[in-house]
Amino acid sequence: MEKPYRVGVRMPKIRSKGSIIDNGMSQADKKARKLSLEALEAALEAAEPQKALKSRITLDGSALRVGLREFDLKKLTGIYVVGGGKASGKMAETLESILGSQISRGIVNVPRNSGPYRTRAIKINEAGHPIPDISGMEGAREMLDVLSHLKESDLVLCLVSGGGSSLMPLPRGEVTLDDKQWITDALLRSGAPINEINTVRKHISGLKGGWLAKTAFPATIINLILSDVVGDPLEFIASGPTVPDSTTFSDAIRVLKLHGLWRKTPPAVKNLLLMGEKGLVPETPKENDEAFGNAYNVLVGNNRVSTSGAYANLQDAGLNCILLTSSVEGEARHVGTVLGSIAVEVENSGHPLPRPCGIVVGGETTVAVSGSGKGGRNQEIVLSSAMRIHGIEGVAVASFNTDGIDGPTNAAGAVADGKTLARSEKQGMNAKGFLAQNDSYNFFSRLGDLIFTGPTGTNVNDVSVIVLTT
Amino acid sequence: MEKPYRVGVRMPKIRSKGSIIDNGMSQADKKARKLSLEALEAALEAAEPQKALKSRITLDGSALRVGLREFDLKKLTGIYVVGGGKASGKMAETLESILGSQISRGIVNVPRNSGPYRTRAIKINEAGHPIPDISGMEGAREMLDVLSHLKESDLVLCLVSGGGSSLMPLPRGEVTLDDKQWITDALLRSGAPINEINTVRKHISGLKGGWLAKTAFPATIINLILSDVVGDPLEFIASGPTVPDSTTFSDAIRVLKLHGLWRKTPPAVKNLLLMGEKGLVPETPKENDEAFGNAYNVLVGNNRVSTSGAYANLQDAGLNCILLTSSVEGEARHVGTVLGSIAVEVENSGHPLPRPCGIVVGGETTVAVSGSGKGGRNQEIVLSSAMRIHGIEGVAVASFNTDGIDGPTNAAGAVADGKTLARSEKQGMNAKGFLAQNDSYNFFSRLGDLIFTGPTGTNVNDVSVIVLTT
Repeated sequence: MEKPYRVGVRMPKIRSKGSIIDNGMSQADKKARKLSLEALEAALEAAEPQKALKSRITLDGSALRVGLREFDLKKLTGIYVVGGGKASGKMAETLESILGSQISRGIVNVPRNSGPYRTRAIKINEAGHPIPDISGMEGAREMLDVLSHLKESDLVLCLVSGGGSSLMPLPRGEVTLDDKQWITDALLRSGAPINEINTVRKHISGLKGGWLAKTAFPATIINLILSDVVGDPLEFIASGPTVPDSTTFSDAIRVLKLHGLWRKTPPAVKNLLLMGEKGLVPETPKENDEAFGNAYNVLVGNNRVSTSGAYANLQDAGLNCILLTSSVEGEARHVGTVLGSIAVEVENSGHPLPRPCGIVVGGETTVAVSGSGKGGRNQEIVLSSAMRIHGIEGVAVASFNTDGIDGPTNAAGAVADGKTLARSEKQGMNAKGFLAQNDSYNFFSRLGDLIFTGPTGTNVNDVSVIVLTT
Repeated sequence: MEKPYRVGVRMPKIRSKGSIIDNGMSQADKKARKLSLEALEAALEAAEPQKALKSRITLDGSALRVGLREFDLKKLTGIYVVGGGKASGKMAETLESILGSQISRGIVNVPRNSGPYRTRAIKINEAGHPIPDISGMEGAREMLDVLSHLKESDLVLCLVSGGGSSLMPLPRGEVTLDDKQWITDALLRSGAPINEINTVRKHISGLKGGWLAKTAFPATIINLILSDVVGDPLEFIASGPTVPDSTTFSDAIRVLKLHGLWRKTPPAVKNLLLMGEKGLVPETPKENDEAFGNAYNVLVGNNRVSTSGAYANLQDAGLNCILLTSSVEGEARHVGTVLGSIAVEVENSGHPLPRPCGIVVGGETTVAVSGSGKGGRNQEIVLSSAMRIHGIEGVAVASFNTDGIDGPTNAAGAVADGKTLARSEKQGMNAKGFLAQNDSYNFFSRLGDLIFTGPTGTNVNDVSVIVLTT
């Protein structure tokens, strides 16, 4: 079997491509592939927590700048670090490299086995993901302990990234981790939209829905967010620990009833929500709460930062470029067909851009699984694109998940060109059949066209590029 | 109920928009709507058979130019006109307005009740569509009669457009219309791809698969094509009456066996195919046939001509523009989501274009119907876009079928803006539910946002535009 491509910031660039390039590829095809993979590397580099964070935090003498705010270290009585998420370990490392011994105390929850991370002042606490566990809960409780006795002259830096919600579970009152998990699962299965799910989650949590900011008050808290949610809605990223909650206990009860779950709801959850409705336990902090006067949210990275990295890379390579969107949604295979259709138009009419050109798209698509194969949304985007660009000379489509894991596979994505379909047919594969079976992984695996990065330590969703050379 | 928009080349522009504009729309919203509808009008105008044909045929003294070829009228012994399709009536009218009494004889098949068309030399023969009928068959036979005794100095102009395949049925040998219809239906139901369906069709037809050109030989035949197939594959448009056939009787038998239809195939069809395989009846004309040395295909219009019309219109209005593709395919609602995602990006980052801007997309999407509602692919594109652009100021998405009929409805398409969702909620409608039910028609009907053109007499598929104003 042929060796797959590797896209990796610190790895040799595009390893193993030599094993494939004799497979009927023209010089133009090879060039298009190379450019598309280099663009993805640039996308990954731009999404690196280190780079993202360093652009938002600087220390100059005793002047500490975080986002748009400036602090005088001499006037701060303490700097505390909390947070959780897939990228929060790397964010913590970076923060320490900037602030060093200025950090008074810190703890961040990271996915088990994602490290090691080199930190001294900030404790790295491994926790369960995507299924929350006791360790995550203990870490979350420690965070609240750290924040609960601060002064106005203290500064809290919160490091939040994708997965933060499951990594920082803190059931409120008598509610257990199991109860919380049951509620989340039941709501997901019921097809409830994310804002309704979050309405319930926030009301059974001691950290989400603004509680973290409330606890830190009167200290200043700055939430440094690496966003993995399309459109970056602050309330949804890690369920908004530093953002006012606009929903109520009554809303949470209504959601559970609406989806026919109220009768099956665990007693501890029911009790908490009913007591809350009667005003016997405090509501989540609302917009007029004084705590939010001292709470700030700074977006350190998101999909646009990453797609812009790919865009800049292609421009530097001398291509005509557009960044089509960093908010793409929709079923992966249809998004792939649209991308392929754009390449077809470039070939036929020079629209939307004349060759040589690159088109960059980012966001998060979905896959409605109906087959029994193995694959991911990026691999499906590339497979359906491959069917559309079939026969075009000097074209490549590459797509990957910036976290390095596309669907339940060990690949980050895949790459294809105008001869991919012909090559697959030579190997007795029917692209349409593989797509129907959601078996994009095996399709690209056999062609040696999977992209591997390993876990990247960041997550700003997916980036796709189409390149057409001259 | 509010009156719907009307987009029509010869109708007052955007009628009835006054009835809607008080519904919470800002000046920017109104402007975006107006620009998007005007762009669709320009798209329709560019796709008009009259305009399309006139740009390809000119008569200057005795010099007749058709596409790239030039003929001296004095040297031609006769000009004959044949053809069929949804736009072929208007094409015939236009041709007569150019050539008048120079036309020796002609007959074109048009859909029943699509006229009237003002012609004298060219006989307009109404026929069944989409179900072929006897009248269509008689017309097709007359065409072959007209062409079967021509001289080298004769010129044949063939007017082909969408629907031509059903409008010019000519079963070969003992095969009946019913047999042909049964075969087409059975192959469609079996999920056979279009090239396999055409392989069989061509081998049981006396006109398709190159036979028309073969019959006209030694005269010169020029096929003037208004294409309704994405990518304009000449072999697929009206099953290629003037294009060499690359498939064989054996291929046709193989296709029927492959899809488990051979045993049920009508005896007359079986006989014909088996006799053909044994060489007892002639194969369809192949590439090396001398007839194709005298046969030319001229594309007079297609989706790109139409989308380019919209593009030019938006540019003239001072907008930044891209024509993204004229070959879009995919499930309508996901294509709509992608279009909406591009508008979101313009709003958030000024990519791919800064405001004011217009994005044009053409092609033919599909709808996998699962609900019991009423709608069409363009209406679904607009509905899913509306959900994505919700809340954006000064944006409009409009999409329509250039033939004036979107799905099984009397509307051509629909238009939406950033407040469409809010307005629909006020009326107690849930956009997501309407989309799930494939009920886009009733959704837009209640908002007064359907686009009506009536039958346009042309067909180059769908055109969508997004406009964002300043």
